[in-house]
Amino acid sequence: MKKNNSSQRLLNVPPSPIRGLVPFAVAAKKQGVKIYHLNIGDPDIKTPEIMVDVLRKWSVNPIRYGQSRGEPVFIEAVKDYYHKLGHKFVKDDNIQVTSGGSEGISIAMFATCEPGDEIIVFEPFYTNYNSYATVNGVKLIPVRTFEDTGFHLPGAKVIEKKISRKTKAILITNPNNPTGTVLTKKEMELIVSLAKKHNLYVISDETYREYVYDGKKHVSLFDYMQKLPERAIVLDSMSKRYSLCGARLGMFVSLNKEIMEGVLRIAQGRLSVGLIDQYMGAKLAEVEGSYLKNVHKEYQKRRDILYQGLKKIPGVYLEKPEGAFYTVVKLPVKDSGKFCQWLLTSFRYKNETVMLAPAAGFYATSGLGKNEARIAYVLNTKDLEKAIEILRRALIEYKG
Amino acid sequence: MKKNNSSQRLLNVPPSPIRGLVPFAVAAKKQGVKIYHLNIGDPDIKTPEIMVDVLRKWSVNPIRYGQSRGEPVFIEAVKDYYHKLGHKFVKDDNIQVTSGGSEGISIAMFATCEPGDEIIVFEPFYTNYNSYATVNGVKLIPVRTFEDTGFHLPGAKVIEKKISRKTKAILITNPNNPTGTVLTKKEMELIVSLAKKHNLYVISDETYREYVYDGKKHVSLFDYMQKLPERAIVLDSMSKRYSLCGARLGMFVSLNKEIMEGVLRIAQGRLSVGLIDQYMGAKLAEVEGSYLKNVHKEYQKRRDILYQGLKKIPGVYLEKPEGAFYTVVKLPVKDSGKFCQWLLTSFRYKNETVMLAPAAGFYATSGLGKNEARIAYVLNTKDLEKAIEILRRALIEYKG
Repeated sequence: MKKNNSSQRLLNVPPSPIRGLVPFAVAAKKQGVKIYHLNIGDPDIKTPEIMVDVLRKWSVNPIRYGQSRGEPVFIEAVKDYYHKLGHKFVKDDNIQVTSGGSEGISIAMFATCEPGDEIIVFEPFYTNYNSYATVNGVKLIPVRTFEDTGFHLPGAKVIEKKISRKTKAILITNPNNPTGTVLTKKEMELIVSLAKKHNLYVISDETYREYVYDGKKHVSLFDYMQKLPERAIVLDSMSKRYSLCGARLGMFVSLNKEIMEGVLRIAQGRLSVGLIDQYMGAKLAEVEGSYLKNVHKEYQKRRDILYQGLKKIPGVYLEKPEGAFYTVVKLPVKDSGKFCQWLLTSFRYKNETVMLAPAAGFYATSGLGKNEARIAYVLNTKDLEKAIEILRRALIEYKG
Repeated sequence: MKKNNSSQRLLNVPPSPIRGLVPFAVAAKKQGVKIYHLNIGDPDIKTPEIMVDVLRKWSVNPIRYGQSRGEPVFIEAVKDYYHKLGHKFVKDDNIQVTSGGSEGISIAMFATCEPGDEIIVFEPFYTNYNSYATVNGVKLIPVRTFEDTGFHLPGAKVIEKKISRKTKAILITNPNNPTGTVLTKKEMELIVSLAKKHNLYVISDETYREYVYDGKKHVSLFDYMQKLPERAIVLDSMSKRYSLCGARLGMFVSLNKEIMEGVLRIAQGRLSVGLIDQYMGAKLAEVEGSYLKNVHKEYQKRRDILYQGLKKIPGVYLEKPEGAFYTVVKLPVKDSGKFCQWLLTSFRYKNETVMLAPAAGFYATSGLGKNEARIAYVLNTKDLEKAIEILRRALIEYKG
């Protein structure tokens, strides 16, 4: 270590490809340029009023700590939600409330791996898994998936080639961020059978559970949890389901008692998750059923607009996204990182531009995804149409 | 690793001595027993109304992500607060907002240490440092302090004996939790000189900065930060200052650019701190000056009541606490863990009892603190007097 330097592991934490372009966006905004944000999944859909009303009617003072496992009123509401989904075996003490889905990811890696252990992921994958892997000393072993098969999983043999004695878990994101892929029942059964055969954990990030389109049904790890009681961890989040990104509410769910006890000790170390956020979240039981239906309909409509619009741009390639509100598209550029920066620094159409997330940061394998970008469709349909038009014009103008 | 077991490091996360007794407290409450909580620093003092009003007037919808470094409005307010304290050199980008002081502790350990590296702490110390040390693979090296010197620091030689080639930092809590000790200028200069001599970081947890009694002045690491620009990290929290424990708001402050850049990358990985909490916290600039003065006066009064009351109990020993709202007392019992549990399960006075935190968990050295407990004086004076009386009677009745 050089004098006065930070630890090497801090230097190893990767920069966020989603957030790294923010300074350029800030500069553009200062110039009065309007930016359409296709780069981040921060939904524009309103949080249910019944949740925001919790704030308006707030009477608890002082703002005391919550319980370390989570406030009982929130845990109860989450449990009821799982029961309504058909997973009646989930009990209160199978649920640990986390500070967003993010904390759940970190804890899952810590709880299943020793430093140096490996977790199988399917690339491209949610870029922040990289940060948590670095923080927890875990090695992510990527298994590649491809645009032309809609980023669906390869067969058992391809995956098994990557399983070593150090492999402790398979991490899936279903529906997927960044690809929008929804795993089929066959794929889920493949994962579960591999986990059984090789004695691995399955960690399933189901933040986007509600967003599966074209009438398909989401196949959850919950459907297999009782067959894999010690080895299944579901990570969940309130952020995208109820537009509660800024309320840091996630759920870590497992039937493994030893894990749940250890996770509670970690939770005690950090005292509690935000009290106010939990009381907001607890209202989920009272949100009308039509809310999620309407949100689903809205995202499917946006998905359609995005897919139809992007397909028409020469040189852009994508499969129809099946779920979540992201897709990874191939762009006719050499380096999407440079292109995305150029969009912010140099390209304007009627004093507007778009912001995308370069896809390279969603791959663990260096060099992959260089001509791809992740696009989030969290804008209203009118803005989304404008954004696609701006992207179309930008790609015509761009030399690179 | 045994089949189906969690990682060894998860098993190594220590249980919280503050929160481990909670199930017994819950059981007692179910029996209708009133418990006076001397075990946890969750203040009963009201959060400033101007902060709670932020909730009542809330208009932002959707509840979007905050910025990863922290919401500008909150960072600005915190910076102004530091400037008013006289530390005008603190700039926006020296401040990283954290999810409570807790996240700051974890990040500080990660940023300064490789796995296996060591941090000097003075025991007894804030028990949750243990959890974060385990999570970050850091070894805490305890230097013992003693009740009869008010838990003040030993001389340079005693500390230097514990410094090895693996030592990366000295971690101080000033004012101290659990002891209530406030470091003198001489002690701060000792720490700073040791850091310079041995090229170590100083990590100063100043959560209780405002709570220094008897007219003494707090000597902050901020006072030395410019002399130690690459090596000083101040950890701070809104929790105790404004009774915002359940709003998870902490501050990680350093002039070291490399550290601040790396810390921001970690922050990007976990997206943001709670949006609502930050908007509440941002009102700190508008809280009347009389608020903190009154809170200070109230805690000093409670400190006096506690000190006078405990001194009179035969066999109880303590020095006068100088700051924060905790003290570690010697009790006439063999095992304070058992005693604290007995208080909850078996002792009642007029159907009431008290809850204390056994001190053993605040020591890293096994066997120390077994006849000590941490007492928090966050109850109103009337309840505090009752709690002391109950403790007095319990100690007479207890056989152990």
